[in-house]
Amino acid sequence: MAPWLTDWRGRYRGQALAILSPSTTDEVAAVIKLAAKHRVAMVPQGGNSGMVAGATPDASGQSYLLSLRRLNSIEAIDQDVRLVRCGAGVILQNLHDAVSKHGLRFPLTLGGKGSATIGGLISTNAGGTQVLRHGTMRSLVAGIEAVLPDGSIYDGLTPLKKDNRGYDLKHLLIGAEGTLGIVTRATLHLVPALIERAVCWVAVGSPADAYQLLLAAQDECHGMLEGFEILPDAALAHVVKHIPGTRAPLESAAPWHVLIELAKDSADQEAPAQLAERFLATAMGKGLALDAAISANEAQAEAFWKIRDSIAEAERAEGPALQHDISVPVSDMARFIDTESPKIEATYPGTQVIAFGHLGDGNIHYHVKAPHGATAENWYRDFATRISADVYDRVVAYGGSISAEHGIGQAKIAEFARTSEPARLAALRAIKNALDPHGIMNPGKLVPLASAGLDA
Amino acid sequence: MAPWLTDWRGRYRGQALAILSPSTTDEVAAVIKLAAKHRVAMVPQGGNSGMVAGATPDASGQSYLLSLRRLNSIEAIDQDVRLVRCGAGVILQNLHDAVSKHGLRFPLTLGGKGSATIGGLISTNAGGTQVLRHGTMRSLVAGIEAVLPDGSIYDGLTPLKKDNRGYDLKHLLIGAEGTLGIVTRATLHLVPALIERAVCWVAVGSPADAYQLLLAAQDECHGMLEGFEILPDAALAHVVKHIPGTRAPLESAAPWHVLIELAKDSADQEAPAQLAERFLATAMGKGLALDAAISANEAQAEAFWKIRDSIAEAERAEGPALQHDISVPVSDMARFIDTESPKIEATYPGTQVIAFGHLGDGNIHYHVKAPHGATAENWYRDFATRISADVYDRVVAYGGSISAEHGIGQAKIAEFARTSEPARLAALRAIKNALDPHGIMNPGKLVPLASAGLDA
Repeated sequence: MAPWLTDWRGRYRGQALAILSPSTTDEVAAVIKLAAKHRVAMVPQGGNSGMVAGATPDASGQSYLLSLRRLNSIEAIDQDVRLVRCGAGVILQNLHDAVSKHGLRFPLTLGGKGSATIGGLISTNAGGTQVLRHGTMRSLVAGIEAVLPDGSIYDGLTPLKKDNRGYDLKHLLIGAEGTLGIVTRATLHLVPALIERAVCWVAVGSPADAYQLLLAAQDECHGMLEGFEILPDAALAHVVKHIPGTRAPLESAAPWHVLIELAKDSADQEAPAQLAERFLATAMGKGLALDAAISANEAQAEAFWKIRDSIAEAERAEGPALQHDISVPVSDMARFIDTESPKIEATYPGTQVIAFGHLGDGNIHYHVKAPHGATAENWYRDFATRISADVYDRVVAYGGSISAEHGIGQAKIAEFARTSEPARLAALRAIKNALDPHGIMNPGKLVPLASAGLDA
Repeated sequence: MAPWLTDWRGRYRGQALAILSPSTTDEVAAVIKLAAKHRVAMVPQGGNSGMVAGATPDASGQSYLLSLRRLNSIEAIDQDVRLVRCGAGVILQNLHDAVSKHGLRFPLTLGGKGSATIGGLISTNAGGTQVLRHGTMRSLVAGIEAVLPDGSIYDGLTPLKKDNRGYDLKHLLIGAEGTLGIVTRATLHLVPALIERAVCWVAVGSPADAYQLLLAAQDECHGMLEGFEILPDAALAHVVKHIPGTRAPLESAAPWHVLIELAKDSADQEAPAQLAERFLATAMGKGLALDAAISANEAQAEAFWKIRDSIAEAERAEGPALQHDISVPVSDMARFIDTESPKIEATYPGTQVIAFGHLGDGNIHYHVKAPHGATAENWYRDFATRISADVYDRVVAYGGSISAEHGIGQAKIAEFARTSEPARLAALRAIKNALDPHGIMNPGKLVPLASAGLDA
């Protein structure tokens, strides 16, 4: 069991009585019925690639690990209406491969695609780099089947575009991190396969300019804008320094960089590179873009994305950093970075903010690097709680979210409780207690307990 | 109070102690706090234009009518990110007018737009004729504020594209028909204003051909397909007979007709009429379309839509009919109509099925007309329950929904209870009881009570 008792980032380690690995919905239902009868806790787990230890059992050793990986059947692909029905244990990469054989694409993708399962992606409402055009997992789920905490089966698998029969249980279960039931199967939306794409690397002067560039891209690249990511020059420098085979795409220096992907998936659309050239020429004329490169082929497109995807790894090599997955309204993110980062750096001398990611979604990975020479252990001990609380307070002041795409799990539960308005917490607790009265579904995750004394 | 005590269709009449009409969120919260303290029931109401009597109080006269119409401020329109923030009492038509002055469009529209309010549209997850491209109300809501049943305020108004902080209360409140709280304000997505549109009237041989035409339109009119409606020839005949100023768009006869709207809202898109001409020529070549007319101007476009929008009125003039707002998977609707309608007509001799509406959403208004000469009162008394139950049983056998867009309210609550699996009903009741333990929020609507003895 050892590999499944530790979370993806290696920060949490738990214990379990045993690992259960059912292979059908009925087996899952039978397990949950027994669990409900005997009041034992179940910790559901897919690919164990979550970022907030939502699938790691606690240290008590009193719960069972419930692996859904054997529910791994891709049952049906419908090309006409672009839907796939599959088990919760299907690994994302395998789904990508299966649907591509039918000229289709499942557009959600992320770093852990070789491990992450469909059930886990649904239960965490996963995001990734293609959300701008296709939405998070929530918008890609057409239907789900789930085993509820009493062992009954909720059958919402049929893909209905319109269904107004009461509270939307599908949306309630998406992002619930297995605390309200176990997603066992899903019907998912697909999109046409890519015909070709252009990835642009653009030097910009500031996050504010990047935001103006985003608005222009949304206007002028109608329907073909697939990704819009931002990174500071320091992030690029770390990648070039630590990741073999990477180099800066442009010769000129710039304080910020933007990666834009334009995708063509319909024969009547313009060639992405041609559209990119026209769009960027206009942007440079307006001074929004300082310099730009357009991928000449797939290898170059991959090379640009590799820089973006290597930022976290390069940063780890560079030294300790605190990571925050935050969102504010898209129109406020540039102001957030420009206004709050200098304040953070001034309050904690020697720190450096590296804010990068999904500007088009108002979602930034807001990392605070330790001062040069700081020892990881000491610095985390002395500063982690204070700095993270400071970052989150600033996010809340913008009406933002302290967890844009990673979820709450165990890792963020205390800060979630601290920063949330009582009405939201009370509603979450009421729902949790109503649907899982014995508290057997992934206890200690997502929903801060009132008894923790956090909402006096 | 009289006009507000009867539902839109005039089928339900209730009583109330008084009508309350707060004008701010704080006033709503104060009212609900008092209601919670004294355990009195509140029946929220917007434009009172719902189809299932969800805003009509019961006959006991022990509840208050809570009108949200005075929350009618359009607070802010952001052209950059295409968002509007407004009160729940804003009337849909007024919202259309306000945003059109900024070159924007709120794409949801329906017959009751002169009365329906934003709060009511959210609480019923309204649909309409533009859902195919823009989704139901659910997909147009970026954020909401609501007063919960204890009088606390849930502030989810800030439009965050990504937010994974626990169960999605926004999605839970959308479509909850005021049974879990009162929506007071909302942030809504807008789309660019229309530049021009083409409305096509197409004669087809069968629902199956119409479905193939839909698939072709989705492939070939990439991004510009705004509506796809179907109607049988009998519906057209009723309209031409009863609605002054209407006439059949085509000279040739055909068993079925399809209305297709192609919309251009970006300068770089093709002229819709030109695209329509090419698309329809191909479809006629394949035999999918028998004949077709493309609107030459806005007046003609309106004339085509007027036929579609007058079907219900013409039918009332023609005689008594039972109306069912149903959905099945888009790919199954043609088969449902072709297979089930002859069986219904054979089982109840003299009846005629008129199935029309949103084929592109898998949502049909499935009306069963009484035999010629039947007296409305007698026929409804003898057949309404049996025929509706029969229709709904067939829908359920296809995995469909007995309420695609109108909701449950009072009118469908018994059939909802009868046709739903116990797991779904139990979950709905648990959520309702958890968030509204005193049962003061719109009692008797949407959630069938266990005490009705329906889930023995």
